[in-house]
Amino acid sequence: MLKRQFVDKLDEGDSIDDLFVVKSLRQSETKAGKPYLALTIMDRTGEIAGPIWDEVDHYRDICQPGKIIHLSGTLGSFQGSKQLKVTDARPVAEEDVDLASFLPTTTKNREDMAFDLQKLVLSVEDPFVRKLLLKFFKRSKNWSLFQKAPAAKGIHHAYIGGLLEHSLSVAQLADHMAGHYLGVNRSLLLAGALLHDVGKIAELSYSHGAIDYTDCGRLKGHLVIGSEMVADAAQEIKDFPLETREQIQHLILSHHGRREYGSPIVPMTVEAFLLNFLDEIDAKMNVTEQLRRKIDANTMEWTDYQRHLERYLFLRGLDSRVKGVQYDDGDPAARQQSLF
Amino acid sequence: MLKRQFVDKLDEGDSIDDLFVVKSLRQSETKAGKPYLALTIMDRTGEIAGPIWDEVDHYRDICQPGKIIHLSGTLGSFQGSKQLKVTDARPVAEEDVDLASFLPTTTKNREDMAFDLQKLVLSVEDPFVRKLLLKFFKRSKNWSLFQKAPAAKGIHHAYIGGLLEHSLSVAQLADHMAGHYLGVNRSLLLAGALLHDVGKIAELSYSHGAIDYTDCGRLKGHLVIGSEMVADAAQEIKDFPLETREQIQHLILSHHGRREYGSPIVPMTVEAFLLNFLDEIDAKMNVTEQLRRKIDANTMEWTDYQRHLERYLFLRGLDSRVKGVQYDDGDPAARQQSLF
Amino acid sequence: MLKRQFVDKLDEGDSIDDLFVVKSLRQSETKAGKPYLALTIMDRTGEIAGPIWDEVDHYRDICQPGKIIHLSGTLGSFQGSKQLKVTDARPVAEEDVDLASFLPTTTKNREDMAFDLQKLVLSVEDPFVRKLLLKFFKRSKNWSLFQKAPAAKGIHHAYIGGLLEHSLSVAQLADHMAGHYLGVNRSLLLAGALLHDVGKIAELSYSHGAIDYTDCGRLKGHLVIGSEMVADAAQEIKDFPLETREQIQHLILSHHGRREYGSPIVPMTVEAFLLNFLDEIDAKMNVTEQLRRKIDANTMEWTDYQRHLERYLFLRGLDSRVKGVQYDDGDPAARQQSLF
Amino acid sequence: MLKRQFVDKLDEGDSIDDLFVVKSLRQSETKAGKPYLALTIMDRTGEIAGPIWDEVDHYRDICQPGKIIHLSGTLGSFQGSKQLKVTDARPVAEEDVDLASFLPTTTKNREDMAFDLQKLVLSVEDPFVRKLLLKFFKRSKNWSLFQKAPAAKGIHHAYIGGLLEHSLSVAQLADHMAGHYLGVNRSLLLAGALLHDVGKIAELSYSHGAIDYTDCGRLKGHLVIGSEMVADAAQEIKDFPLETREQIQHLILSHHGRREYGSPIVPMTVEAFLLNFLDEIDAKMNVTEQLRRKIDANTMEWTDYQRHLERYLFLRGLDSRVKGVQYDDGDPAARQQSLF
Amino acid sequence: MLKRQFVDKLDEGDSIDDLFVVKSLRQSETKAGKPYLALTIMDRTGEIAGPIWDEVDHYRDICQPGKIIHLSGTLGSFQGSKQLKVTDARPVAEEDVDLASFLPTTTKNREDMAFDLQKLVLSVEDPFVRKLLLKFFKRSKNWSLFQKAPAAKGIHHAYIGGLLEHSLSVAQLADHMAGHYLGVNRSLLLAGALLHDVGKIAELSYSHGAIDYTDCGRLKGHLVIGSEMVADAAQEIKDFPLETREQIQHLILSHHGRREYGSPIVPMTVEAFLLNFLDEIDAKMNVTEQLRRKIDANTMEWTDYQRHLERYLFLRGLDSRVKGVQYDDGDPAARQQSLF
Amino acid sequence: MLKRQFVDKLDEGDSIDDLFVVKSLRQSETKAGKPYLALTIMDRTGEIAGPIWDEVDHYRDICQPGKIIHLSGTLGSFQGSKQLKVTDARPVAEEDVDLASFLPTTTKNREDMAFDLQKLVLSVEDPFVRKLLLKFFKRSKNWSLFQKAPAAKGIHHAYIGGLLEHSLSVAQLADHMAGHYLGVNRSLLLAGALLHDVGKIAELSYSHGAIDYTDCGRLKGHLVIGSEMVADAAQEIKDFPLETREQIQHLILSHHGRREYGSPIVPMTVEAFLLNFLDEIDAKMNVTEQLRRKIDANTMEWTDYQRHLERYLFLRGLDSRVKGVQYDDGDPAARQQSLF
Repeated sequence: MLKRQFVDKLDEGDSIDDLFVVKSLRQSETKAGKPYLALTIMDRTGEIAGPIWDEVDHYRDICQPGKIIHLSGTLGSFQGSKQLKVTDARPVAEEDVDLASFLPTTTKNREDMAFDLQKLVLSVEDPFVRKLLLKFFKRSKNWSLFQKAPAAKGIHHAYIGGLLEHSLSVAQLADHMAGHYLGVNRSLLLAGALLHDVGKIAELSYSHGAIDYTDCGRLKGHLVIGSEMVADAAQEIKDFPLETREQIQHLILSHHGRREYGSPIVPMTVEAFLLNFLDEIDAKMNVTEQLRRKIDANTMEWTDYQRHLERYLFLRGLDSRVKGVQYDDGDPAARQQSLF
Repeated sequence: MLKRQFVDKLDEGDSIDDLFVVKSLRQSETKAGKPYLALTIMDRTGEIAGPIWDEVDHYRDICQPGKIIHLSGTLGSFQGSKQLKVTDARPVAEEDVDLASFLPTTTKNREDMAFDLQKLVLSVEDPFVRKLLLKFFKRSKNWSLFQKAPAAKGIHHAYIGGLLEHSLSVAQLADHMAGHYLGVNRSLLLAGALLHDVGKIAELSYSHGAIDYTDCGRLKGHLVIGSEMVADAAQEIKDFPLETREQIQHLILSHHGRREYGSPIVPMTVEAFLLNFLDEIDAKMNVTEQLRRKIDANTMEWTDYQRHLERYLFLRGLDSRVKGVQYDDGDPAARQQSLF
Repeated sequence: MLKRQFVDKLDEGDSIDDLFVVKSLRQSETKAGKPYLALTIMDRTGEIAGPIWDEVDHYRDICQPGKIIHLSGTLGSFQGSKQLKVTDARPVAEEDVDLASFLPTTTKNREDMAFDLQKLVLSVEDPFVRKLLLKFFKRSKNWSLFQKAPAAKGIHHAYIGGLLEHSLSVAQLADHMAGHYLGVNRSLLLAGALLHDVGKIAELSYSHGAIDYTDCGRLKGHLVIGSEMVADAAQEIKDFPLETREQIQHLILSHHGRREYGSPIVPMTVEAFLLNFLDEIDAKMNVTEQLRRKIDANTMEWTDYQRHLERYLFLRGLDSRVKGVQYDDGDPAARQQSLF
Repeated sequence: MLKRQFVDKLDEGDSIDDLFVVKSLRQSETKAGKPYLALTIMDRTGEIAGPIWDEVDHYRDICQPGKIIHLSGTLGSFQGSKQLKVTDARPVAEEDVDLASFLPTTTKNREDMAFDLQKLVLSVEDPFVRKLLLKFFKRSKNWSLFQKAPAAKGIHHAYIGGLLEHSLSVAQLADHMAGHYLGVNRSLLLAGALLHDVGKIAELSYSHGAIDYTDCGRLKGHLVIGSEMVADAAQEIKDFPLETREQIQHLILSHHGRREYGSPIVPMTVEAFLLNFLDEIDAKMNVTEQLRRKIDANTMEWTDYQRHLERYLFLRGLDSRVKGVQYDDGDPAARQQSLF
Repeated sequence: MLKRQFVDKLDEGDSIDDLFVVKSLRQSETKAGKPYLALTIMDRTGEIAGPIWDEVDHYRDICQPGKIIHLSGTLGSFQGSKQLKVTDARPVAEEDVDLASFLPTTTKNREDMAFDLQKLVLSVEDPFVRKLLLKFFKRSKNWSLFQKAPAAKGIHHAYIGGLLEHSLSVAQLADHMAGHYLGVNRSLLLAGALLHDVGKIAELSYSHGAIDYTDCGRLKGHLVIGSEMVADAAQEIKDFPLETREQIQHLILSHHGRREYGSPIVPMTVEAFLLNFLDEIDAKMNVTEQLRRKIDANTMEWTDYQRHLERYLFLRGLDSRVKGVQYDDGDPAARQQSLF
Repeated sequence: MLKRQFVDKLDEGDSIDDLFVVKSLRQSETKAGKPYLALTIMDRTGEIAGPIWDEVDHYRDICQPGKIIHLSGTLGSFQGSKQLKVTDARPVAEEDVDLASFLPTTTKNREDMAFDLQKLVLSVEDPFVRKLLLKFFKRSKNWSLFQKAPAAKGIHHAYIGGLLEHSLSVAQLADHMAGHYLGVNRSLLLAGALLHDVGKIAELSYSHGAIDYTDCGRLKGHLVIGSEMVADAAQEIKDFPLETREQIQHLILSHHGRREYGSPIVPMTVEAFLLNFLDEIDAKMNVTEQLRRKIDANTMEWTDYQRHLERYLFLRGLDSRVKGVQYDDGDPAARQQSLF
């Protein structure tokens, strides 16, 4: 079922008849003492709220936070803001729904990215490292998760497809660095680049309404989880060299660069130094890209104070051709069962 | 072959005929241009040095650093210090030798400690956790390594048997805390206490002459290695609850307490808080104990500046009954193949 | 006068006729321009608010923040929240009132704790240290303050009786540690444990409505105040050894463990190391205990983000038998004039 | 007994016959195996070393480090350095000796400084504060210690008379600041300036050979000791206002400005802010003055790297008229029993 | 045009007819759907808000934030707060208006300060340094900006005239220090004191409604901008010694004292050390002065928690004679075209 | 005059007749009291020392540290080390000498690098930025300094040609990044990359014997110096846009990335973020390259502890083809007067 109405395109007076996810639901009471529901719905483009005055018990069951509903109504206004006027809400089977409609999603084409990642994997010189990557990405479950996962809860690449976009970008930079500097082990560096955040598959859950941490993600962290995943995959490959496995684990464990940032071990190899920097570059560049999408093209503007960066940024808005990206409205994972 | 002569008991004029480990060997040249060897030997009680004037090539092969040699000679003196006068040096098969003669060793009785640890393991209430501990310590290889390993390269418990001594002490404190505070999960806390440093088995190597890091130890660190060991052991136990495994891994991964100290994850459970503190207490108390052994009993003295603690300490010397500990001159691991 | 109605047990429609403390009072104005009072009252279990529409001047004098009042009225509701409807409020003489009804209070039995503390004091081996502790706790004023004081303004043990509960718990752990480790001076460690926070008697004031700092508390801090108290008490004991006094002062001054945390001096003795760790353990365990009281028993839950700990916690709720603690509704200090 | 020969004025060939303090003594052995003593002597201007070949046992008893000896001999040279040739060494009664000959000493005139301090004390407006200062400085023991004490072990004002020089300089700056800024309490600020380091009287010992910490100095620190001294002095003054006492204690306790620098409490009053800055200014200016004495006048030079400042300094040498200060060769404390 | 009505003197019922600056303007909508404007106006003494119900489009153009308007109306009240009732608002030509009426302004007399600064400049001994200062302050544009500029966006001296007040105060203290300490280069220190914050002329803009950063201020910072200004001015003086220029630049660049505080270079000269401390003293003293203006004279009070200082302060209120400062209602810069 | 004999190729017994730089000269005295000189000479490959027994006054004048001398003698040995036996030393005119023989020098070909840099400059799209770069590098003095300067005193690229090598490498990476990421301003980023360390031309001096800081370098730092250079160059270009100049200055001033690392301003533009990371990457990669040159090819080894990186590194030795780089024995700057 394809969603066609998006929050950011709705105007006052439009009638609404499409799928949305419930962001929150709170029961309240009118001054007259009559109970009503305060409903907020969202999709990947924004959110709107409004009251449900009648059949409170009926709709409270249907509109549980995180659920997808088929909503009918119109868009009115109250005290100068848009307000939802609900006429009906019906439950929807989740299997029929494309996640990418409800959560923010990469602006890159996921099929193109899959193809580029595939090329990089196949170009890895070291046969064991290549085998490890193939084994990992060939599993349809891994691949399905990897290309859907966000790369973070907040801050950078915090959207569906973010993990794939980020890992591929880092790997492409890694490829270039391996040519620029003497004696870098390209195979190890590419493996590190593609797998450094792979633990996020298990660290973050991203049900319809929100990206959040799993128990395991909080108790162990994606660095250790990713390192375990690599150890498990290597164990299934006959004669996989111990030293190679340990070096890839080192790349994953050390990629935050400093202990204060959660790496139990600091980078000690040439490849680990590079990976740490490339990861930081790509994360920072994605943060600025998100901010630049909100600025008029060819305008240079100071952003609001960015608390996590502890500074203001001076950014030029992104060109409209770049911004007007086509959202991919189908889920490539559904069509393509595995990467290879 | 039992070593009977120890460096700290040798007096000027004594003739020497026993096993020692080569600490260093440097070839030099007399003013007359004749080559000679400068040899330093050691055992667990100290070191002495002296020249070998003749058959330089012959002795250079035998006296490789780290090797155990059967040395004959006498103890003379030069410019007011003791000096070794070597008459002969012969190679020795390492299998015949007890490591504890050459490296500093715990002053506690290792068999008593093994017994106490066994009692604690058997007292663990949670059947899965108990099974995990039994599986781990029953393996003769694990046990052999665990009771020989030092707990650190420097600083605290840096001697043969130190890992066992430290882990047991932390576990005994943990046992008490589980009774003192409401609702602590004693099984998890004991498992964490006994296994928190288990990765040091693989992180540190301790050949005859020195304790050092392994490649794997440096690339991954003992927290991640220990967490992997637990995951591997749990995998071999049918129906081992995932949550229990993750909590024990969390205990190991977080036991350094802060990211700056190498924990990828900070303590987030009651048991993890306690383990972190008990580990620190026991480490600090061992450091002070080492220092107190050098002070006359019943004397309160300021130590030298302790760089790693960034302070002077004001300590009372240890009572002679306590200090005059009997070194255990046999290797219990040789006699007792496994813990259970 | 015994309070029988508590905020957390009041239901909509109940009529109210009991003592409460005024948390805040603000004068406001209706749209029609008529003045009214916005009153918030509290006891140890919570707070409720409501307007006083009439006799504004009369009630403004009676309902000063921090005062205890005898309130009559009913519990109604407004916009879905409970709202107080006041019919009358009368002043109450403070002497007749038990503080523990209005401020949160320890869940432990204060008489039992007093007994346990007494036993520990009497078990101190060093006669001068024992005399110092007896002198200190025998003074009825000291004892009265000590067993009523909270151990902190916020964070841990921030309730009536908290200082006693915390000091005793640390002393009990200290007792155990003195047995576990070689050559710890048990007398000094117990004195340090019992007196480490004694300066809080003067650092914090806890009138009915709130726990706050005194001028002296802010200008000098409880470490220096406590150190002064010990010096004063020692001065009254003939021949009290200078070294002993300085060591106990060192224990108090250094118990925060680091300069950044307010200790002018870092721990330099074995006892000071232990005291610092035991204080931290007990504080952290109390924080987690407070959080666990809000979680259903046998449920493992992630708490909200704990800013002062910079983390989420994963905690199991406390068992109902443990939680359903009997509040002690009389003030033992009133009955028992001094500890010995 | 007045010392006339100083190390920095001795030339090769001079015969020596005067008092010196023994800096170190080490027994060694010639190649031929004959024992000898390696003696280093010093006075406030420098040190020289040389062997004692004969009567080793006799001279070893006399030349204990820290003792003052009457030495006879000549100044020769060995391998291009000056070397002491000892012919005799005799013990000297310490009472007969002026400390200032052996330890580095303030270049300021101590009688002038005493006079200036007196003037400032008498100018204090608040009668209680003035009485406190008079009481403190009038005690001959306090005054004797105060005007001899160094202000630090190393770094700044680390010489006899340094405490007086530093305290007076800070007080003079304080006097100026109290005029420059609105509503500064001059009495409190002057008291803080004169007493802020008074605890150093008890924190540091300065026997002939070296300045070192006392037990009490290390266990409590000069801030807490000084605060205690003020409390004791205030207690002896009838009706001394509690608030005034607490504010002066606050000035002393907070004068290091930050917790990391050893203040248990940060500055919270206008006077405490000023005192902290003036103390830092005067300490830094003294450090640069010491360095400038080693540079030729009218030359601008980069110093060696100053580790405690983490930088190089660019300083102009002090003018010779300023440098050629007359050392005061008598001890004013011997002549003037108290300040007032 | 002289402003006579100030916000803090307006009472309910007063009719209003004077100049104000628009702080903010927001368009909103009544429940009935009718658009209206929510206007907030301010002058240097405070702000008031109120709605404009009619001619929304007309007034929206006139009342742009930052603009000065001539406002007519009355002061009413709504829900217990004062509320503006607007009858008309007309645009005003900015040339006719004195800035000091709309932004908070120094309480010192700007002409007196100009005179004192002049005296200090003329007293500078080094002819090149004096020439540099004259050149700088003689330019009417520089001087006009210098004596109007605030010294900061927030925190200290954040008002019209603050830069002049702060620079002069620091220079006066510097003058005193140059006399107190041996061999300070008074000329350099005075130049540093007067020019250290001169870059703020370009770093901050202060249109009527607010003080804010300029692009250049954010991209380069006032330290580098000030250093450039000095270099430019020196370049215009024949034979200006390179070393002198570099030392003044060093004073400006290092005056924040630490790299963490934005100095690219730490203080390395005697003058740079002093300047850094004097700047800090004057800034802190101004912060406390601002806070003391809000406290009753002769009362000692704890302030609210001061986040940027990370502490509470204990301050005495300023004496009314001091507080009741005459605001200078004319702009001296308008009358006096340049300083010399 | 071409140097042919290099220290690292000299064997015992070789006769020496070539140019060397004097590293140090110390006058000493034989046991017999006869004065002699201890001379150490060096070239870019290492150093050797030896005594000059005769004509001490004559040779002391000639062999001043930092001077180039024509030395005759032989290579002998003393106590197992090589020792220089000097027969004669003559002064040499510095103009005739190629610096690169005496200081360590880049292993890259400087003419190739000049060519690559030229290409990059000419490819800059923004005409003003291109003009600025051309102006800067066209000046023969600038270019001569730029291609000879080291990039640091220690740590990374600390050799003749290091600045050119480092700047070019960063610019090449910048070129790639500008293609990889959306909307990066390639002109600005390339200018920043080429000019970020240009201040080092004036910050560091590199006379024959050592690389050291200049006065100006220490007082202002290369960031501010570089920013000034850009401002000066831009001023000479008609209509150079202010915003462009400020952005390039921002790139230079912020390229250390954090205030603690000496940037007065943190990166606030997309280009500044990238430049900071690329600078760090290239510096770190150069450090590892230096270390790898000391390790056998195809061997993976742990380095010694690297204090400035606070870690050990695990590195593979560089391939011999890569290591056996041809030193360029002529100075391209001598042949090629400017870059364009």
